[in-house]
This record gives sequence, structure tokens and C-alpha cells, in this order.
Amino acid sequence: MSIKAVIGIDIGGTFTKYGGVDRGGRTYFENSISTDRHPDVESYLKALHKAVTVSIEESGESFDIQGIGIGAPNGNYYNGTIEYAPNLNWKGIINLTEMLGKYFKQMPIVLTNDANAAALGEMVYGGAKNMKNFIVVTLGTGLGSGIVADGKVVYGHDGFAGELGHVIVIENGRQCGCGNRGCLETYASATGIKRTVFELLAKRTDKSRLRSICFQDMTAKLIYEAALEKDPIALEAFEYTGEILGKKLAEAVAITSPEAIFLFGGLAKSGDFIFMPTKASMEKHLLNIYKNKVKLLPSGIEDKNTAVLGAAGLIWNELID
Amino acid sequence: MSIKAVIGIDIGGTFTKYGGVDRGGRTYFENSISTDRHPDVESYLKALHKAVTVSIEESGESFDIQGIGIGAPNGNYYNGTIEYAPNLNWKGIINLTEMLGKYFKQMPIVLTNDANAAALGEMVYGGAKNMKNFIVVTLGTGLGSGIVADGKVVYGHDGFAGELGHVIVIENGRQCGCGNRGCLETYASATGIKRTVFELLAKRTDKSRLRSICFQDMTAKLIYEAALEKDPIALEAFEYTGEILGKKLAEAVAITSPEAIFLFGGLAKSGDFIFMPTKASMEKHLLNIYKNKVKLLPSGIEDKNTAVLGAAGLIWNELID
Repeated sequence: MSIKAVIGIDIGGTFTKYGGVDRGGRTYFENSISTDRHPDVESYLKALHKAVTVSIEESGESFDIQGIGIGAPNGNYYNGTIEYAPNLNWKGIINLTEMLGKYFKQMPIVLTNDANAAALGEMVYGGAKNMKNFIVVTLGTGLGSGIVADGKVVYGHDGFAGELGHVIVIENGRQCGCGNRGCLETYASATGIKRTVFELLAKRTDKSRLRSICFQDMTAKLIYEAALEKDPIALEAFEYTGEILGKKLAEAVAITSPEAIFLFGGLAKSGDFIFMPTKASMEKHLLNIYKNKVKLLPSGIEDKNTAVLGAAGLIWNELID
Repeated sequence: MSIKAVIGIDIGGTFTKYGGVDRGGRTYFENSISTDRHPDVESYLKALHKAVTVSIEESGESFDIQGIGIGAPNGNYYNGTIEYAPNLNWKGIINLTEMLGKYFKQMPIVLTNDANAAALGEMVYGGAKNMKNFIVVTLGTGLGSGIVADGKVVYGHDGFAGELGHVIVIENGRQCGCGNRGCLETYASATGIKRTVFELLAKRTDKSRLRSICFQDMTAKLIYEAALEKDPIALEAFEYTGEILGKKLAEAVAITSPEAIFLFGGLAKSGDFIFMPTKASMEKHLLNIYKNKVKLLPSGIEDKNTAVLGAAGLIWNELID
């Protein structure tokens, strides 16, 4: 008997990961291809189709593929497009689902941005299985957010809802990739905490192991490791990041009143170092009616194939509707 | 033949207005009773039931009443309750729909807060008839907000979503009725602009007709009238109010990506004085992908029975679902 599964595809700037996933979250095959070695999208899609076909064959199983879910930077759910993604070779607006549909004929194909896919992954496979109102915040290179209200992702009028990374926290603050200054993601993200560390290294005189690492080599992981050894600069950087993030999460709560907020991605792996100051600041800034009600949780599907599971969750969720 | 209609009820701190409204927005009768003369909710509901019954009789029409919609301060849609409303005599949690159901038997009764009712009124009868994603901001004594995503009001986990009035704009800023400081509604509301005027009267030395009005007599209408005569304090107060409001609207856009934001209520009647600086500030603070896309509009049902129409819209919307 063939196995009912979907294909989840996570398009990143460097690699594209994909996998075959059933409704329960079991992954039957998983692999990746290069994204950035394909200067044009046609050659990329041809390679992707071939790789997926080979993976299915090599798995030795017989599948009844139900559909394809795709998480992509700047992905637009309504149009199935990737629009002006700064970290991809393909410029302008790419009709990705339409183009991929030529390879996978008569197959439901749905695309959304990576943070929305993470939210759907959390709902279908993770910690939000029984929740109808929650927010997923991805703390990676940037800060993304996926907002679920009454069991549905909030896409907004144009498919671009959930840009919490670009609310402004400090007027005329740090330069952001979006062109503005002082956006939340310039403070609360793996890149943001690195910038904070360099500000603190300049401002303070404490001894710190971080003084021996140059800007381009600094990572959130190194800051986390320093914090584990009570490095004062690293500890202060986590405090500052959490203070800013918690304040803005409190505002998001006032708008959508979620049951929980999940922190996801690289920086979220720092555990209490980031969760504790974020929670404290969120509670401090929350309106009374929300205090001590909103859970701040780590992702329930935080492992190597999270993004692929999220993309799989997207299409499973669509098929159920 | 009897007319299919609903009863819309708007519970305010002083008066409760009600009316019989058909699907097209035609109001067949409209009247009000006192809210604050009833120290207990039972005597209030008895009086309300009697008044509505008399109004139906006196209208001379035959109605087929489909349901009752109620807009109330601190109204909770999920529970049909009014919870800890600071401006009502009835303290604690009032099971209003259940209690009213004893008078209007076997009738669908739905309750929500006043800003959500305003949003539903806008969707059923007003400027948002063809919109699925929009926000209504009520600028009265306080600032309320109703958020519609994909055609549905966002109620959140506990029914308390949409408290945009209580996001903090200035850390340790003006004292707010909610217990926090620096909340948006202490700046952007009829009361907020009045506080701004008094700050400006203290700070600046311009001649102003507003110098002859004491705090308790000052109103948003008087400030508007002064602005019409180019009073420098009044003009500056509108600029400042719009700057703060626009900045926070830009953040709400980044979360829900609406097609339009409607400004509603007393302060919104000041027209360009409030719309122009708000729009300018919102556009200045918007992320590029949202710029010049989000309409800032006056309510499409701004007239004497707006709140009753909103409450009627609530129940019509429910009956359609």
C-alpha cells in the first residue's frame, strides 16, 4: 500500500531542503540541493524536481503524494510568488508555484514565507497542536513572525502580514536591511545580539573572551558559550536583547491576544539566557488583562528538519481545509 | 408581512441606545434608556427589555426579530460577559447575554466590545463592505481598536484582542486609567489631545484662545474649533497627536497588513487636522512593502446611530455565518 505523504520544501539563500512527510510528522526521505548555484530559477526548479524524484525512488517506498508545501523568504501566500527576496539570486517577482506546477503536474502547491511555515509546522506537528491563537517568532539572521488567529495564519490584505521584525524600537537606531533604521530585527535576532555585543565592547571595559573575536567571526553561538561562562558582556547582551524583544512582544499581544508565543531559530537555542529577560520584559510591559496569561515557549519541533516540517505543515493544513 | 430585523444595543456608561435594524441598515426604531441610574444589572435589564418591547409596539410595524447584538465596554465575545468595566456601576464579571436571554427567550444574543462592534458595523454597513482585512480605531474618551483579518474579527485566545490603546508609546509617560504609564490612548484620544494642549500651554508662550479654558471644560471639539482659526497651540496639538498615532498604526500594519484603517469617534471628526499628520507619520514609519498601500479613512457610517448599527452588524454577521 502506498503511503500518503506531502513534500515539504524549505528554500534558503544557500540550500534548499526538502523531505517527504506524512500527516503524523514522520519523515520518509530528506535531502537538499544548492539554491545559490542556480543563477536562474528555471535551472533551479529542474534540479529540484530531479532531486525530489530521485529521493522518492531511492526511499524504496511507494508514495501517494498529496501536495507540496514551500517555505521561502518573502514568500507570498496569495500569489504563490517570491517577491524581491534580498538573499536570493532571482530578482523581482517569481511565480514559483506556477513554475513548479509544470514539473509536478496537477498537484496542489502552496507557498508562504518561512515564519508562516514555522507557525504552521508548530500547529500541525509542534507545541501549538491544540492552540488556535499563537505567534511564532523566528530569531535567525533576521526576525520573522507568523501569527495564527482562530486557527488560521493572518496573511493580511496583500499576504505580507507578520513583519514584526520591522516595527521600529529605536527612532533613528541601527541601520536595517529594509532601508529603515531601528527595526526590531536589528536588535532581536542572531545578528542583532552580535551588534549589541560590539556596542557593549566599545562602551564597557570588562574583561571578556568576546574581545578576541572579530565582527565577521562573531556568532550567536559564541555569545551563548561566553554567557555559559558568565562573561559579563555576553550576559548583558542577552539582557538587553530580551528587554527589547519582550517590550515588542507585549505590543503584539495587545493586538492579537495569543495563548502563547513560540521563540524559534538560532538565538532561541540560548535557552534561559534569552527566555528569562524576554519574559520579564514582556510581563512588565503587558496590560493587566494579559499579565501571567501568555506562555513564552521554545518551539516544539526544534530539530534539524524543522523548516521542512513547517513547509509540510503548510500543505497538510491546506488539504484539511 | 413582518420585517426581518435585529436589535442593536450600545451600552455606554451614561446611556444605553438601542434600535431595530434590517440587513440593509435601515433603522425602524431607535431609543435609549439610562445606564447609570441602575445600580444593579437586574433592574437595568428589566428596564431595557420593557423599553425595547414598547419601542417595537409603538413602531406600528410587525417584526420578525432574528437576534440581538450588543456592544459594551470590556465586552467579551467568547463569554458574553462584561468584565471589570471601569465606567459601569456593575462590578466584576457580568454574564450579560445569559441574563438578557431570560427576557428575550430563544433568541441569539451576541456581545462584544464597542470597538469590535464598530468594526462589524463598518463591514456590514459602512466603508469596509468589500474588505476582508482592516482595522477600526475609535478615538473617543479612550482609544479602542477592532481588527478584522480574513473577514473575521480577531478576538484572540481570551476575547481581549485589539487593545491598541494600551501599547506603550512613551516609557514612564502619562498616567493611564489601566494602571500603566505612557499608553497610546493617553496621547491619541479626545482626552489625550486635551492633555497635550495643557502640556503645550505650559511649555510655549504663544497667544491662544485655549488659555481661557480650564481643564475640566476643555474638549476635543473646542480644540478643533481653535484649529479652524489657526490657533498655534491647537494646530501643534493635532500634529503631535497624529505623529504618535501614525507611528503606532504603522506597527499595527506590520502585524496584520490591513487594506485600510478607519478612524472613528469624536476626535476623528476633526478631519484633516487629525488625518493629515496621522497619515504622514504612518507612511514615514511604514516598512517599504506597505508604503502607499494602506488607506486611512473616516468611518463610512459616522452618524448619530453608529454604535447601534455596529451592534446590529455584530449579530447580522453572526447570523450569516
